[in-house]
Amino acid sequence: MTRVAIMGATGYSALELLKILLRHPNVEITTVTSRQENSPHIAMVHPSLAGRIDLKLEDLGPIAVANRAECVFSCLPHGVSSTIVPHLLEAGARVIDFSADYRLKDAEIYGKWYGQKHGDPDRLGEAVYGLPELYRDAIPSAKLVANPGCYPTSAILALAPLLKAGLITPEDILVDSKSGISGAGRTLKLTTHFPECNESVAAYNVGRHRHTPEIDQILSAAAGQDVATIFTPHMIPMDRGILTTTYSLPIGEPSEEKLFGALRDFYRDQSFVRVVDHLPGTKDSLGTNFCDVTVRVVHKRVLTISCLDNLIKGAAGTAVQNFNLMYGYAESTALR
Amino acid sequence: MTRVAIMGATGYSALELLKILLRHPNVEITTVTSRQENSPHIAMVHPSLAGRIDLKLEDLGPIAVANRAECVFSCLPHGVSSTIVPHLLEAGARVIDFSADYRLKDAEIYGKWYGQKHGDPDRLGEAVYGLPELYRDAIPSAKLVANPGCYPTSAILALAPLLKAGLITPEDILVDSKSGISGAGRTLKLTTHFPECNESVAAYNVGRHRHTPEIDQILSAAAGQDVATIFTPHMIPMDRGILTTTYSLPIGEPSEEKLFGALRDFYRDQSFVRVVDHLPGTKDSLGTNFCDVTVRVVHKRVLTISCLDNLIKGAAGTAVQNFNLMYGYAESTALR
Amino acid sequence: MTRVAIMGATGYSALELLKILLRHPNVEITTVTSRQENSPHIAMVHPSLAGRIDLKLEDLGPIAVANRAECVFSCLPHGVSSTIVPHLLEAGARVIDFSADYRLKDAEIYGKWYGQKHGDPDRLGEAVYGLPELYRDAIPSAKLVANPGCYPTSAILALAPLLKAGLITPEDILVDSKSGISGAGRTLKLTTHFPECNESVAAYNVGRHRHTPEIDQILSAAAGQDVATIFTPHMIPMDRGILTTTYSLPIGEPSEEKLFGALRDFYRDQSFVRVVDHLPGTKDSLGTNFCDVTVRVVHKRVLTISCLDNLIKGAAGTAVQNFNLMYGYAESTALR
Amino acid sequence: MTRVAIMGATGYSALELLKILLRHPNVEITTVTSRQENSPHIAMVHPSLAGRIDLKLEDLGPIAVANRAECVFSCLPHGVSSTIVPHLLEAGARVIDFSADYRLKDAEIYGKWYGQKHGDPDRLGEAVYGLPELYRDAIPSAKLVANPGCYPTSAILALAPLLKAGLITPEDILVDSKSGISGAGRTLKLTTHFPECNESVAAYNVGRHRHTPEIDQILSAAAGQDVATIFTPHMIPMDRGILTTTYSLPIGEPSEEKLFGALRDFYRDQSFVRVVDHLPGTKDSLGTNFCDVTVRVVHKRVLTISCLDNLIKGAAGTAVQNFNLMYGYAESTALR
Repeated sequence: MTRVAIMGATGYSALELLKILLRHPNVEITTVTSRQENSPHIAMVHPSLAGRIDLKLEDLGPIAVANRAECVFSCLPHGVSSTIVPHLLEAGARVIDFSADYRLKDAEIYGKWYGQKHGDPDRLGEAVYGLPELYRDAIPSAKLVANPGCYPTSAILALAPLLKAGLITPEDILVDSKSGISGAGRTLKLTTHFPECNESVAAYNVGRHRHTPEIDQILSAAAGQDVATIFTPHMIPMDRGILTTTYSLPIGEPSEEKLFGALRDFYRDQSFVRVVDHLPGTKDSLGTNFCDVTVRVVHKRVLTISCLDNLIKGAAGTAVQNFNLMYGYAESTALR
Repeated sequence: MTRVAIMGATGYSALELLKILLRHPNVEITTVTSRQENSPHIAMVHPSLAGRIDLKLEDLGPIAVANRAECVFSCLPHGVSSTIVPHLLEAGARVIDFSADYRLKDAEIYGKWYGQKHGDPDRLGEAVYGLPELYRDAIPSAKLVANPGCYPTSAILALAPLLKAGLITPEDILVDSKSGISGAGRTLKLTTHFPECNESVAAYNVGRHRHTPEIDQILSAAAGQDVATIFTPHMIPMDRGILTTTYSLPIGEPSEEKLFGALRDFYRDQSFVRVVDHLPGTKDSLGTNFCDVTVRVVHKRVLTISCLDNLIKGAAGTAVQNFNLMYGYAESTALR
Repeated sequence: MTRVAIMGATGYSALELLKILLRHPNVEITTVTSRQENSPHIAMVHPSLAGRIDLKLEDLGPIAVANRAECVFSCLPHGVSSTIVPHLLEAGARVIDFSADYRLKDAEIYGKWYGQKHGDPDRLGEAVYGLPELYRDAIPSAKLVANPGCYPTSAILALAPLLKAGLITPEDILVDSKSGISGAGRTLKLTTHFPECNESVAAYNVGRHRHTPEIDQILSAAAGQDVATIFTPHMIPMDRGILTTTYSLPIGEPSEEKLFGALRDFYRDQSFVRVVDHLPGTKDSLGTNFCDVTVRVVHKRVLTISCLDNLIKGAAGTAVQNFNLMYGYAESTALR
Repeated sequence: MTRVAIMGATGYSALELLKILLRHPNVEITTVTSRQENSPHIAMVHPSLAGRIDLKLEDLGPIAVANRAECVFSCLPHGVSSTIVPHLLEAGARVIDFSADYRLKDAEIYGKWYGQKHGDPDRLGEAVYGLPELYRDAIPSAKLVANPGCYPTSAILALAPLLKAGLITPEDILVDSKSGISGAGRTLKLTTHFPECNESVAAYNVGRHRHTPEIDQILSAAAGQDVATIFTPHMIPMDRGILTTTYSLPIGEPSEEKLFGALRDFYRDQSFVRVVDHLPGTKDSLGTNFCDVTVRVVHKRVLTISCLDNLIKGAAGTAVQNFNLMYGYAESTALR
C-alpha cells in the first residue's frame, strides 16, 4: 500500500487522477490540497466524487503534505510547481509533476517560452520525462518525474519510432493537433464559454504554443539531431480527446509496410499504444489510457494520425503508469 | 427610415438583434453602447459582425443616445434598465426593453423575485408587454415595450389560447422547460464553462426562477383568474433553443381536436406561431422567429409542447416584431 | 471465476458491459454473439476494444452458448430474447436479460404496448425484476433476471421510496425525462443522424413510450395500489445520461426534511444511489453506476430529480450488480 | 422576377438554398423535385420550412422542370447530375450544379477519382467553375455553372491569391481541413450516427478524398503550373463549418505583411471574403456567406487559416451569388 497526496486537486486532470487512484488496490489517498479552497469536502468541488471518497480539500504546504504521503502528484500550475517540488523532495517524498516545470532540460528555453525565470533550474537534469514508452528504464528509480504534456504525448508516440528507425527526416515536420476543450483547463475564459466554443473550431497559439519545445526536445533525442516542428493546435467542441495529424518527409522511398513495421516493433511490448490499420477516432480511446497510432503515405509524404484522451493518456493515466513503475506495481494496475 | 440605437450591445441577444436589423430595409443603426467597452469597433467584441457594420461601442448616457435614435433597444440588465429608460423616454425616444424591469405590473412582486426595489415603479402601468400574439393592439402606440422573457414566450404561446378558450383549468399547471446554454448569457460562470455543461443536463433555480411570476401574470390575464404555475428550467448542451413541455388539467372531457382547434383559431392570423401536428424539435425553429406549438391528451392530462429560438422569438426577433408594429412596417420585415 | 457470454454484442449496452466485465477479477468472457456478424474480431465492430479482448463475434444458438457459459447476458432485442432465453435456461445457464421481454408480469400488457404476442408468457412469473435497490432478496437465487429499462430505473429510484413511505399519492404522477442519444441504440435512424438531432431537443413517443407500463408496474408494487404515470421522454444532444424530473402530490403537508429523510432511510445501505442536496447534473454520474436523487417542494407539489448514465446504471452496470449478487461476489465488484 | 427550380431538394444544401431563395425579392420558386419522394409537402421532409413555402416534392424529369423554371439548381448526386443537366440545357434552362460532375475539366481525372465514366464529357469545357472570387467575369453569361465543393472553396480562397502573387511555391502544399458533420450529407451512415461521431474527431479518406483534384485544378490555374496538394479532411462534432489550415513554402523571405497585402489586394472589391488579423473560428461565419482568411509565418513556413459555413459559402450561398451574377441582380441579394 502506498500513501499518496494530490496537490492542486480542483482541476480536471486531478479529478481523473482521483478516479483512477480510487480503483488502485495499492493506493491510499491521504491528502488533497487546494490553494483556493480550504475545508470543503472534495465532492463540493467535484460532485462526481460524492460517495466515493471522504476527504476535505486542505490548504497545506509541501512539508505537511510530504509527511502524509510517500508519493505526491503535483497538479499545480507551471511556475508554482517548481517552488513546491524542491520542498517535497527534500522532505523525502517522490513527486510526479503534471506541470511543465521539469519537462524541458534547458532553463533558458523554459524562460523563453513560459515568459518567466525557472524557479529550480538545477533540478532539470535529474527529472525524468515520464513517458514510459520512451523512458521506461529511468522511471523506476526516479525521485522526480515530469509528466508529459497532452499534445506532446500524441505527437511523440507517433513520430519518435519513425525518427529512431530513420524512416523520416528530422526537418520539416508539421504537427496539426485537434483537442477537446478540457485541455484548456477549468479556469473560466471567454474562449471556453459554451456558447462561444460550441459548434466552432478555431486554431490558437499558432507558432507559439508552449508544448512546441517539449515536442522538439523529445523528438530531437529520438532522432539524434535537432528537430524543430511546426505545431498548430486547434480547439474542438467536445470534452476530451486529442487527434494529432503529422506530416513529414520520408528518407528514401516511403513504404507503409516499413512504417507500420517500425511502429509495431517499437510498441511490441507496450501495453498502451495500439498501432491500428484503420483511421482511429478519438472516441476509440476516450476514457482509456490507450494511444492509437496509424500511418499513411500520401504523395511521398508520411502522415501519422494518433489519438488519445488528453486527461488520461495525456495526463492522469500516464501519471499512474509512472507511479506503478516507480513503486513496482504492474504497469497497468488501475488502468484497464 | 428609422434611426435606432442599442444599449448594452455586447451580449448574445444584442448580437442577434444587430444581425436582424442589418437586414431591415428601413432601419439605420446609429449607436451601440457598452458600459464595459469604450471605443473598440463592435467587431472586436462580436467577430461575426466583421465587414457587416462599421460602428464603435461607446459608453454613452441615455440623453446622448436619445439624440441619435428614435427607437432605443435596451439590452441592459434588469435593475440597470429602469434607471436608464426614464431618461430615454423623457428625451423623446421610444424604448423596447429586453430586461425584466417593465414586464411585471406589480413592483412588490418584482421586489420579491428580483431581490431589489424597483427603480421606476410608476411606469409599470404604462409599459406594454410586447408579445404581439397577445397584445398586438397596444403595441403600435406604445412608448415603452417590455420585451418578453424567453421561457415565458414559450409557455404563454402554448397555454394562453387554451386558458382563454376555457379548455384547461388555471390550477395545477406544470411547466418543464429545456433551454440551450446561450440563455444563461455571456457572463462567465462555472456552470456554463464548456467542460462542465457539455454532455450534461441539469435543472436549475427549481421553484425560484424569475420568469415564474411573468408566466403567471400573463396567463392569469388570459384565464381571467389567478394562475400559479410550477416552472422548472433545465440547461441543455446546445447553443440555442427552448422546448417547453406543459402539463395541465382539462375542463370537461379533453379532446385533441378541440385543443388543436383552439390553437389554430387563436393563431389563424399570426405570422410566427406554427401549430403543428407532429412533435417539433427546437431545430425546426432555430435561427427563425417561429414558435412551434402542438398539443396532446395523455391519461386525461393535457400536454403542450412548444419550441422556439431563445435569442430570436425569445428575444431579438420579437423585439423587431414589436418595432415593426410600433413604426408601421410590415410585421415580418427582416424576420423572414 | 465465472464463465459468461454476451448474446447480441454489437450494441452500446453490450459494449459497456464488456468494458465492465473486462475489469471484473472473477469473470471470464468466453463468447460474444451476433446475428448480423459472423467471424469478425469484436474490435472490428467496437474499435475501442482493440487490444483489450481477443474474441470473435459468432452467430451461435442458445445451446452452444450455454455450453460455454454459466451466465448469459442477453442483449438481444425484445421479441427475440423470449425465443432464446427458454433454451438458455433449459440448457442450464442463468440469464440476465437486457430486453423488455421479462420485465412485465402481465403478457397482455406486454402485447398491448409491444404490439406482439409474448413468446414465453409462462415464465413471466418466475423472472426477477433486476433492480437491486428494490429486489435485492430475490436476485441471488434467480435463474432469470429481467434487467430494468433505463428510464424506469431513473423514475423508480426517485419515486418508490416516497410511495412506500406514504409521502406522495399514487395518483397524478408526471415523469418528464431527458435522455442522451445512445438510449436510442445503434440502429441508424434519421432522428439520430447527427445533423438532425445535434443542437436540438425534442419529445418523442409522448403517451406511448414502452417504458410506461414498466414504471407503473414497479411503482404500483411499491405503493401497494395502482399507479398510472404520465411519462414524457425527450432526446437531448449528448451521448449518455438521463435526467428525470417527476411531479407528484404530497400526502399531507409536504416537508423537504421528511422527503429527504425517506430517501436517505431507503438508500442507507445501498452503494449506488446518492441522495444529494444539490441539483445534480447527468455529468456527475457519467460513466459510473451511480444514480443521484434529490427532492424539492414547490407550491405544494413534490418534485424529484434523478440522474444516471443510461448505459451503466440504466443497463450494463445494474446488470453486473445483478451478476455479482447472483454469484456471491461483492456487489460493487468492477463497478467502482 | 426569375422562376427557379431545385432538383434533388431533400438534402441539407437544398434546404439552405431554399431558405436563402425565400428571402430573395426577385425569385419565384416554382418546383422542387425528389426521386425518392412524390407528393409530400416539402415541410414533411424539412420541418423547418413549415409555413414558409407551399410546394410539394415532385418526381419530375428535366423537360418538365425546364418548362417551369429559367434557372435550375441541381442538387442531384454526382453521376446523376450529368445525365440530367444536358436535357435541362437543351430545354433552354440555365443550370447551377451542386454536384462534382462539371467541376473537373478532365474526364479522365474525373473517372479516376469518382470511379465511373463521365456521363457528359463534351460539356466539361463550357461549364464555368462558379467561384465568383476567381471567375467573376465568366459567370454572367454562363449557361452551366459548376458550383464549387465546400473544402475546395476554403482552400482555394486562402491559397490562390498567394500563388498568383508568387509568394508561395506550388510544390509541397498541405491542406488539413476540419468539417462539421452536415458535410457528410443526409444519407444515414454509421460514421454520422450521433453516438458514433459526437465527442470524437477522426480523419477520413486520407489521400483519396474527391475534392483533391478539384483543389489542384483551380490552384494550378492560379499558379500557372501544376499544383498537387496533400489534402486531409477531418470530421468534427458540430453541425456546420469548415476550418482549413494550409502549410506551404514561401518564395523568398516570407513576410506576414506581404502575405496579408496580397490577400487584401485580391479581395479588395469582394463582398464575401474577410481578411482578418485574428485567428478566426468557424462560428464567426456560421450561417453567413462569408469566408474568413488569415495568414501566419511560422519557422519559414506559410500557414493560412480559412473558415466558412460549408452549407452557405461552401454550397448554397455561393450558388445564389452565382445566380445573382447570372441574372444581373446585386451580388449580395438575399445573402446579407
